[in-house]
Amino acid sequence: MTELRTPVIIINFKAYSEAEGPKAIKLARICAGVAEETGVNIAVCPPIVELGKIARTVRIPVLSQHLDPMMPGSATGWATPSMVAASGAVGTLLNHAEHHMMLADIRQAVEMCRTAGLISVVCTDSASSSGAAAFFSPDFVAVEPPELIGGDTSVTDANPEVVKGAVDTVRRVNDNVAVLCGAGIKTGEDVRSALDLGTDGVLLASGVVKHKDPRQALRDLVSRI
Amino acid sequence: MTELRTPVIIINFKAYSEAEGPKAIKLARICAGVAEETGVNIAVCPPIVELGKIARTVRIPVLSQHLDPMMPGSATGWATPSMVAASGAVGTLLNHAEHHMMLADIRQAVEMCRTAGLISVVCTDSASSSGAAAFFSPDFVAVEPPELIGGDTSVTDANPEVVKGAVDTVRRVNDNVAVLCGAGIKTGEDVRSALDLGTDGVLLASGVVKHKDPRQALRDLVSRI
Amino acid sequence: MTELRTPVIIINFKAYSEAEGPKAIKLARICAGVAEETGVNIAVCPPIVELGKIARTVRIPVLSQHLDPMMPGSATGWATPSMVAASGAVGTLLNHAEHHMMLADIRQAVEMCRTAGLISVVCTDSASSSGAAAFFSPDFVAVEPPELIGGDTSVTDANPEVVKGAVDTVRRVNDNVAVLCGAGIKTGEDVRSALDLGTDGVLLASGVVKHKDPRQALRDLVSRI
Amino acid sequence: MTELRTPVIIINFKAYSEAEGPKAIKLARICAGVAEETGVNIAVCPPIVELGKIARTVRIPVLSQHLDPMMPGSATGWATPSMVAASGAVGTLLNHAEHHMMLADIRQAVEMCRTAGLISVVCTDSASSSGAAAFFSPDFVAVEPPELIGGDTSVTDANPEVVKGAVDTVRRVNDNVAVLCGAGIKTGEDVRSALDLGTDGVLLASGVVKHKDPRQALRDLVSRI
Repeated sequence: MTELRTPVIIINFKAYSEAEGPKAIKLARICAGVAEETGVNIAVCPPIVELGKIARTVRIPVLSQHLDPMMPGSATGWATPSMVAASGAVGTLLNHAEHHMMLADIRQAVEMCRTAGLISVVCTDSASSSGAAAFFSPDFVAVEPPELIGGDTSVTDANPEVVKGAVDTVRRVNDNVAVLCGAGIKTGEDVRSALDLGTDGVLLASGVVKHKDPRQALRDLVSRI
Repeated sequence: MTELRTPVIIINFKAYSEAEGPKAIKLARICAGVAEETGVNIAVCPPIVELGKIARTVRIPVLSQHLDPMMPGSATGWATPSMVAASGAVGTLLNHAEHHMMLADIRQAVEMCRTAGLISVVCTDSASSSGAAAFFSPDFVAVEPPELIGGDTSVTDANPEVVKGAVDTVRRVNDNVAVLCGAGIKTGEDVRSALDLGTDGVLLASGVVKHKDPRQALRDLVSRI
Repeated sequence: MTELRTPVIIINFKAYSEAEGPKAIKLARICAGVAEETGVNIAVCPPIVELGKIARTVRIPVLSQHLDPMMPGSATGWATPSMVAASGAVGTLLNHAEHHMMLADIRQAVEMCRTAGLISVVCTDSASSSGAAAFFSPDFVAVEPPELIGGDTSVTDANPEVVKGAVDTVRRVNDNVAVLCGAGIKTGEDVRSALDLGTDGVLLASGVVKHKDPRQALRDLVSRI
Repeated sequence: MTELRTPVIIINFKAYSEAEGPKAIKLARICAGVAEETGVNIAVCPPIVELGKIARTVRIPVLSQHLDPMMPGSATGWATPSMVAASGAVGTLLNHAEHHMMLADIRQAVEMCRTAGLISVVCTDSASSSGAAAFFSPDFVAVEPPELIGGDTSVTDANPEVVKGAVDTVRRVNDNVAVLCGAGIKTGEDVRSALDLGTDGVLLASGVVKHKDPRQALRDLVSRI
């Protein structure tokens, strides 16, 4: 199994126009640069069409934003675990709030990731969903209350209970599953709060990708780890 | 609008294990090589995670196997027209038999492709669906009877009526829409038959991708154009 | 084939709270009463869970709001053409703006309706989609621009071109397909305009279902036919 | 909250042709008759288009085969919790193997059922999925290994571990959630085994619906309770 050392900051590029084509590659390089200069574990989730390109370009861990639990073969346009692994990516997000998955598909995707040597990060919307996801033994559960995603207030301020609840619930089900939190995280202070609440890191997007100076944003984010 | 000159042979790599990671890049290069040596128009549809990498690697047209009619922004894991264009790809398949789309999404995707400067190839399963798709004015309609996909008999032998029907129906709706056919196509003779039935080319997958010698398979395929 | 005589007014109950349970049955009876007293063809689309009950209760045509193109068998929770026919309903809406369907499923659903003796009404969002739908030879195409659905301005005022465009396009593809229009229709004047634009009737919902006096609303709607 | 007393036998009519239209009503009456004569708790899940009709016809509990977590309103063709409750049904299956749901939708559907006073029965495919579902505090979890559904061997014989595993896992998460099992159950002996494995009843379909004498099949099923 590839490792994603913790604490970790995962940057989800989403489908933001700030992270398309060459801009995605440049942003990934910025993230890699900050990881190198600070020694903090930073991973990136580029647009799916740039996954292979970026996985072969930067030396930090690259994760897919999604994959479909399908075997190699007649699966036109889908992203199989096998092709994601062959692209050089080390893992994937699953069930992001913008890409919901069937319960049965999450379970199967996590299993297929394990077989393919991919790290699985199952996104959830609540403490109870985090506990549910933990039953499938992914490597990470990342809790993000949907109403806070893309907003200006960090989940660690707006709803620390959901973060703590996710940590507790996941630990109760499976102590080997690491917990991340996300939604509204923008500063080093937010990251510090996330870790203090018991998480192993954060998942964020706009706070870096849409920032006018992503490098500066990242340096601030890692400053309190 | 980027151009895809006809007659064209589009090779869909699907999610075949023969076309994952570095193997996808190598196969794309083989296709480019045969295009160069023969002067025949060959385009490739690599796995979606390798789209950007391959679009920047080979000089033949590269198409996505699918895209989602979504704007840039909060669309984690989806492939937007904008990011596909930014990757260097020149177009996309839509509504492949293995990736069915809503009627309304096909219409919107074709429009978004037009805006993004992407060539749209709408896959259909019948003459009537081909006529339907033509109403959205894509650049291409590609008819593939699902029961023949991946099989040993070319659609041009097994069901030439569906090909001729698609050509006639599409012409009747919009004379600017080119027509391709696919399913079971493996030889230069099959390609010749497709062109003789009035199409502007073929869409094929296993006949090249799963062939033990893809270069040889391609050379045969283009031999009668 | 069961007949749905034209001009026809189809009342879609949607999932409005005004049309749940016994209220749906009562509303269907009101529609039947107005049909009887005025001689106008009125059909109703009750909530799917009341389809059989209402189809056996009123003597006007009852249509499903949706069905899934699946055969009888292991299809838990889906509405097959066969069970819809057995319920006493005479037809179904397909591809409503609130229930989009895959292109291939629309084609298959229309065919399965034909086999099951059900009338098919394919909803579309534009003139081009109407032409597309006509290729599958449904009994009706019902054009409803989504931005006008549930609004206060009738499509016949806000966008008569889309109605006329749908009529023309459908006629060009298949003269046997009747055309309805919908979105914002509330008055007898609106219905008159719809017929004057060449349609065979209208599809409406809130104008009757959410009206404080549905009987009065209906009487007004049929007054200019 | 309506009660569904245990042990319970839930008969899922699926979309079997043996349970369409009047045949569904007749079958529901047979189930009600056996419940009355034996005193055993039997509930039925009729085809969705017959839900209201049957819920008002028989005096045993009637459940929907599925519902969609949507509010009353613009939801053409969908089955909302509110309309299911108004139909007279007392609950619903969710996430049946033939009708998979998104993780987030399962959670929301269970909550909406609670608000609407509906009993929720979440179907799962494994012990781990059963534990996951239990986090949402439905009234019931019903484990059915998909490979055994519709088969000739009872899950209680073919895979008693999955039943026991589901019971243990669910109890560990939430002791108030009852557990059912299903797949291949056909005899009173199978039901006895299910109860002995710690379940609160069974979910079955073909063993009754497709039996040449459903009344006899049911009498046998309840004989060892």
